[in-house]
Amino acid sequence: MEIITHSIYLRTQGHNEIHNFTPQILQLLQESSLKDGQVTVFAIGSTTGITTLEYEPGLVKKDVRVMLDKIAPYEKSYLHNQTWGDNNGAAHLRSCLIGTSYVCPFVDGQMLLGTWQQIVFIDFDTRPRQRNIAVQFIGLSDS
Amino acid sequence: MEIITHSIYLRTQGHNEIHNFTPQILQLLQESSLKDGQVTVFAIGSTTGITTLEYEPGLVKKDVRVMLDKIAPYEKSYLHNQTWGDNNGAAHLRSCLIGTSYVCPFVDGQMLLGTWQQIVFIDFDTRPRQRNIAVQFIGLSDS
Amino acid sequence: MEIITHSIYLRTQGHNEIHNFTPQILQLLQESSLKDGQVTVFAIGSTTGITTLEYEPGLVKKDVRVMLDKIAPYEKSYLHNQTWGDNNGAAHLRSCLIGTSYVCPFVDGQMLLGTWQQIVFIDFDTRPRQRNIAVQFIGLSDS
Repeated sequence: MEIITHSIYLRTQGHNEIHNFTPQILQLLQESSLKDGQVTVFAIGSTTGITTLEYEPGLVKKDVRVMLDKIAPYEKSYLHNQTWGDNNGAAHLRSCLIGTSYVCPFVDGQMLLGTWQQIVFIDFDTRPRQRNIAVQFIGLSDS
Repeated sequence: MEIITHSIYLRTQGHNEIHNFTPQILQLLQESSLKDGQVTVFAIGSTTGITTLEYEPGLVKKDVRVMLDKIAPYEKSYLHNQTWGDNNGAAHLRSCLIGTSYVCPFVDGQMLLGTWQQIVFIDFDTRPRQRNIAVQFIGLSDS
Repeated sequence: MEIITHSIYLRTQGHNEIHNFTPQILQLLQESSLKDGQVTVFAIGSTTGITTLEYEPGLVKKDVRVMLDKIAPYEKSYLHNQTWGDNNGAAHLRSCLIGTSYVCPFVDGQMLLGTWQQIVFIDFDTRPRQRNIAVQFIGLSDS
């Protein structure tokens, strides 16, 4: 059994920007000799999110935004903003709701994802950020 | 340390149909010789969900539907639907929100679930589907 | 590879009470000899939640409550409540939405959490409860 941990760095603009970084995860899996196991994807930061999504412009550019703008609007007055002279209360709430951690199994070197199912990172913050996503594989080299 | 991966197949009608497949997970755990570890349950497909729920008709047939109908109504006009001539934008949004992955520990061969806490699969899609859920155990045979 | 499972017990008042129990997780990690791996945090019970949050009073005391009060109000009439003569339908819905499981990697004995990112437990129930959270480490002692 092996444990291999990588960092993926992303430069983002925030404001619910959605990144598909599934290709990087697949490449890291291929570069390892692991056959069976799981990958844990963990977004570091309290204004980030990890989920799965069909990565197509309708959902990515508009539909997910409209849903989350209704649940936790950016322009609303949050106690978080008043307390800290901040403006990203909505970003914290979206992160709390969507979550920052995802675990996906792989078998015989193949991730068990659906055809249209991509692992995505969402930056909910209100300013450009340099982000760090931990990608940790736990698995066996030989099935 | 062992890794054992199974597929559970479900035929569903979609439209927020909720399945309790905890008994199948418990049976797979019993059939293994694993004592301590975790099970990762991963729903394959971008219009699916995995979560925990008290599996009783009030929540299953109505209350969860009412909550999600407010957040992401099926009848709304989504850019996803316009782009692809599709009608399941709401299904993608619900999947993105609820998530498709769940990890639960077990100790001495027993899953650490609450009395009323069941692991459920939700099919958010708008048509009947054949679904595949990956169930992966990582654990030790002898505690 | 080792698997170590602990229980953390909390006495709560419910009603969306949020607990930061990250310090206890960090202490359990330090007390182990594990260097690289992951911790799975699983809240036992169908009216509980686990997520990450900046643990500051604005978000904890007000903003998260306001968001969830809109999605699943406590005072609403749920079929769950009518069926069981119960009053915690909203608690079940919030648990289903937020989730009860979280996986976080650690490297060289350090959890990969952001500066303001805490792992929190939320008790959504409508009465005081004694709660049990499973904390399971899977890892290697020597990186």
